[in-house]
Amino acid sequence: MIRIATVILFLGCTLSLGINPAAAQSPSRPTQNDHPTATFDRSIQTNSNREASIPRPEQDETAKQKLASLEEKAGKKPNILWLIVDDMGYGDPGCYGGGGAIGAATPNIDQLARDGLKLTSCYSQHTCTPTRSAILTGRLPVRTGLTRPILAGDKLTKNPWADETSLAALLSESGYHTLLTGKWHVGEPKGMRPHDIGFDEFYGFYSAQKEITQGKDGRRFPDLVNDPELRTAFETIKPDDHLQHGFKGGRTETLEQINSTQDMGRADAKLAEFTINRIKELAQDDKPFFIEHCFMKVHCDNFPNPDLGPLSAAKYFYKEAVAEVDLHVGNIVKALDEVGVLENTFIFFTSDNGPQMDGWPDAGYTPFRGAKGTTFEGGVRVPGIAYWKGMIQPGRECDGLFDLMDLFGVALNLASVSTEKLADDKYYDFIDQTSFLLSDNGESAREAVYFWWGSQLMACRMREYKLHMKVIVPQSEHMHIDYSTVQDAGLAGWYFNLYIDPKEQSPVGHRRNAWLASVLGKIKAHAATLKKFPPKDVGL
Amino acid sequence: MIRIATVILFLGCTLSLGINPAAAQSPSRPTQNDHPTATFDRSIQTNSNREASIPRPEQDETAKQKLASLEEKAGKKPNILWLIVDDMGYGDPGCYGGGGAIGAATPNIDQLARDGLKLTSCYSQHTCTPTRSAILTGRLPVRTGLTRPILAGDKLTKNPWADETSLAALLSESGYHTLLTGKWHVGEPKGMRPHDIGFDEFYGFYSAQKEITQGKDGRRFPDLVNDPELRTAFETIKPDDHLQHGFKGGRTETLEQINSTQDMGRADAKLAEFTINRIKELAQDDKPFFIEHCFMKVHCDNFPNPDLGPLSAAKYFYKEAVAEVDLHVGNIVKALDEVGVLENTFIFFTSDNGPQMDGWPDAGYTPFRGAKGTTFEGGVRVPGIAYWKGMIQPGRECDGLFDLMDLFGVALNLASVSTEKLADDKYYDFIDQTSFLLSDNGESAREAVYFWWGSQLMACRMREYKLHMKVIVPQSEHMHIDYSTVQDAGLAGWYFNLYIDPKEQSPVGHRRNAWLASVLGKIKAHAATLKKFPPKDVGL
Repeated sequence: MIRIATVILFLGCTLSLGINPAAAQSPSRPTQNDHPTATFDRSIQTNSNREASIPRPEQDETAKQKLASLEEKAGKKPNILWLIVDDMGYGDPGCYGGGGAIGAATPNIDQLARDGLKLTSCYSQHTCTPTRSAILTGRLPVRTGLTRPILAGDKLTKNPWADETSLAALLSESGYHTLLTGKWHVGEPKGMRPHDIGFDEFYGFYSAQKEITQGKDGRRFPDLVNDPELRTAFETIKPDDHLQHGFKGGRTETLEQINSTQDMGRADAKLAEFTINRIKELAQDDKPFFIEHCFMKVHCDNFPNPDLGPLSAAKYFYKEAVAEVDLHVGNIVKALDEVGVLENTFIFFTSDNGPQMDGWPDAGYTPFRGAKGTTFEGGVRVPGIAYWKGMIQPGRECDGLFDLMDLFGVALNLASVSTEKLADDKYYDFIDQTSFLLSDNGESAREAVYFWWGSQLMACRMREYKLHMKVIVPQSEHMHIDYSTVQDAGLAGWYFNLYIDPKEQSPVGHRRNAWLASVLGKIKAHAATLKKFPPKDVGL
Repeated sequence: MIRIATVILFLGCTLSLGINPAAAQSPSRPTQNDHPTATFDRSIQTNSNREASIPRPEQDETAKQKLASLEEKAGKKPNILWLIVDDMGYGDPGCYGGGGAIGAATPNIDQLARDGLKLTSCYSQHTCTPTRSAILTGRLPVRTGLTRPILAGDKLTKNPWADETSLAALLSESGYHTLLTGKWHVGEPKGMRPHDIGFDEFYGFYSAQKEITQGKDGRRFPDLVNDPELRTAFETIKPDDHLQHGFKGGRTETLEQINSTQDMGRADAKLAEFTINRIKELAQDDKPFFIEHCFMKVHCDNFPNPDLGPLSAAKYFYKEAVAEVDLHVGNIVKALDEVGVLENTFIFFTSDNGPQMDGWPDAGYTPFRGAKGTTFEGGVRVPGIAYWKGMIQPGRECDGLFDLMDLFGVALNLASVSTEKLADDKYYDFIDQTSFLLSDNGESAREAVYFWWGSQLMACRMREYKLHMKVIVPQSEHMHIDYSTVQDAGLAGWYFNLYIDPKEQSPVGHRRNAWLASVLGKIKAHAATLKKFPPKDVGL
C-alpha cells in the first residue's frame, strides 16, 4: 500500500509540475509538521521569502568569531574575489580528475584546492546567463527573468534588472569598490550593463568569445566571413566586439576592437593584467574590494594567445585555454600575495556551467552525463574551490551541497550587509554558507538544489539523491546544445543515488524509493514559492 | 595517395592480427631504420627479448645516485611494498576524482598521492589473474599462459609456473624476505601457490571473495545455499575457503575457514594485522623485505566488517569496502613509520583492473568507458601511486605511461638483481621505470602499452593515442563480464586521442591519422615478438 500511495502522490506532482510553475496548480506549501519530509528534510524556513536552510549554530558562531578577529587585525572588511571560468568542465582541473591526465595540467588551480576547500557538489545553472544572473541576485533565473543571454537586438517588455538589487549594488553601497572584469553576458543594452546595475567599474566584453569571433574566423565560418556582402550585412547585427570600460552612472569608454581571432586569443591576458593592476591599486585603498573576474576562455571557440608558447601537452586550443586560465589564476593569486592582501581576501574559483561540447573535439571534459545545456550532472556540477589563507583550513574536501547562488549570501555576510536590505516581495534562493566554508569541519546548510531550464522545473538534488521530473536528452554523440530535446521523465521520474550512480545511468525509483516522496515533497514546496512569488515575465 | 597507403597498410595488419598471434603471418620485425615510426617512436630495443624503451640516461643516473646514498645510510637494500586492491576503479579514490564525491572518502590513499607520485596513465591487464601473473613475471599473460584464474578443478596440460621465474624467487634468492598476504588467484593447485613459486611465505586466500561467499550467501544465491542437496554437492567442487599459511618448500597450514559472509567481512582486517605484525618483525631483520599485500576487497561481493562502524557516507557495501581498504592502507603505512623503515620502503598502491560492474549497484566507479573485463580505459586504467618518503618528491603527478608489469623492473633495480638472471629464450615485457618514479622530473621510458584479451591482441596506447583493433562491447547498461561480445573494430580501427576523448566515444582515425601508421607499426612489431617467442599453451 505504501508503494502505491507513493506513486499516486508522485503522479500528482508530475502533473502539477510539468507546466510553467507560475501557472502550476501546486498545493499550499507544506510545513515541517504536515509533509512526509519531516525527518529526512533537516532544513527549516525562517522567513517565507527565503530558502530553508539546515541550522548550523555552532559553526556559524565559529565563523563569526574568525571574521571578527580578522577584521580587527585587517582594520577593514575582507576583499572578495570571484574567479569565474566560462564553460570549464567539472573534470577539467587536475584536482577534479583531469589536468595532466587529459592533456592540460592546472597546477595553480590544483594548488588553490590543496590549500583550500574543494567542493565536490557545487552547482551552477545549466548555462551562462542564468548562472551569472543568479549569483548576483541570489535568485533563480526563473524569478528574475534572466534566463538566457540578452542581446542588443532583443525586444524585451521590461528590463529584468530594473527591479533587482544586485550584489554589486549592495556591496558598493556598503563601502566596497566593486569591479567586474571580463565577460558579462547578462544584458548588453543600456540599463543592463555591469556599471548600470551596481558595479562601480566594468572592464571587459558584453558577450561570449564565440559571438565575437564568428564574424572573424574564416576557417570555421567561411560562409559568413568570405562573402563580402554577408559580412557587411552582419556588421549591422553583430554583437559588440570591443573591450569596454564602464563606470557607475553609465559612462562607457569603448576601447580596442577584437579584429581577429588572434586578438581574441590575447583578451584573457589583457583582462588578467587589468585585474592584477587594480588589485595593486585597491590594496592601498581604505575600501575593501569585490572583484568578479570572468574569463573569456574556455568558451568555444578558443584561440591560443599568440604571445604564449604551447602551454599544454594536448595542444588543442581548448586545452591551451585551460592551461592559460590556470596561468592567470596563478598570477592573480600571486598579485594578492605580493601586495599583502591574500589573508584578507576570500577567493572562490568556479565555472558558470558544465563543458560545452558543441565545439568537440575542441571541448571540455566532465566525468558525468550530459554537458552544458542539460540538467544532468554534466551540465550543472562544476568545480568550486574556496581559498582563504589563514581562514579556510588547507586540504579540505567536502561533498556538501553548494549552489553558486550561495556566493551571494556569503558575500553579504563577509561585508556585513544586513539581509533586511533585501526586498520583502521577492523570493531569495541563496543560503548563507559562510560557516560551511570557514569552519574547519563546516557542513553545508543546504538541503536541496533545484534545477530549472527556462521556466520548466526539471530536477532536484537532496542529499545524494537526485530526482528528474524532466530531462534534456542530446540527440547526438556529444551533447550539442542546439540538438537536444526536453522530455518528461517516465512514471517514477528518473531517480538516482549519485554516490552509487554518479553518471546517472540507471534510475532506481521503483526499487529504492525510501525518500522518493520526501524529495518530491521538497520539489512541491519549492514550486509553491513560485506560486506565492510569481516569476517575472520580461518577454524573452 | 598517402591516406590510401595508410589504409592498405592498416588492413594488412588487421588481417594479420585478427587471429591468434602465435599463428599470425606478421612481417619480420622492423627496426628503427626501416619502419615508419622512426621519429614518432622514441623507444630503442637493446635486446631482442626485451621491450624497447625510451632512453633516459640523465634521470637514470640521478635515480642510481639516490639509491646508492640511501643504501649507504640504511645499510641494506630498500624494502618493497605493493598494496594491491582487488577491482578498485580508477575513479574510486578521492585523488582520482571520486572519494567523498561518490560517497566513500579515502583520506589515506589521497595522502599517499599528495606526498608521492600520482600516475594518471597507469595500466593493468583487464582482469585479475592476468595482472597478478604479469607483475610477478614481467611478462604478458599471453606469453606465460596465466591468462585467467586457475581453479582447483582445471585440467591443465602443464603447470604454467613451472618454467617461469617469479619476482619473488629472484628477490628471495638475492636476500629478501618475500611475503604475499591476501588474495592469490594465480593458481590453487600444488606447484602454483605463492610459496611454490618463490615467496618465502604466504598468508591469505587462494581465490576471490565472490568465489568464497557464493556458497554462504543465502541472500544472493538462495538456489545454492537453501537447497541442502545442492549445498552438499557444492562442497565437492567449491574453491578453497580457508585462510592459508604457506611456507617456501610447500608446507601449508590450513587456518580458519570462512563460514559466513561476516567472516569474509573480517578478512581484510586480519590480513592487514598480519602484514603490520610482519612489518614490525621484519624491520628488525638484517634482510630487506618484499611484501605484496593483496586486499580481498573491493571485489564483489563485498561484506562490511561487522567490527567496524559504517565507514562511508554512502553505506553501500562496496563503498564500505573502499573506506575499509583506505583505513588499512593508512595503518600499514603508519606501521612502517612507527618502526622506522618508512624512508627505506618503496610503496606502490594500485588496483589489479578496473571496477567490476556485475555487482551493480554495489560496484565501483571509473570515469572512463567500460569496466573490468574490457580493454577500454575503464577496464585497464587504474590508480597508481608511488610513495617513498625522502626518495620521491611529494605532490608529483604524471601522465607518462606505466604498465604495472614495470613494477617487476623497478623491483629488480631496487634489489640490484641483474637482468642477466632472466631467461634468454623468453620475451620480457616490463620496462625498468625506476628513474621515472624516483627522479624529481622523471619521465616515462615506456612508449607503448599493449592490451590483450586472452590470446587476442586488442589495442595499443602510444603517447596520448589509442588504437583498438578489436573491442569488447557490453550488451547491457553496465559492463557485465558475463554479457559482452568481442568484436573486430571497423575499417580504420577505433583510434582515439585520449586527451581529447578520454571516454573513447568518437574514433577519429580517418580525420586525424598522422600517427595511425606509426601506432600500427608499433603493434606489428609487438605482434612479431609473439612469433619469435611463441606463447605458452597450457591447455586453459
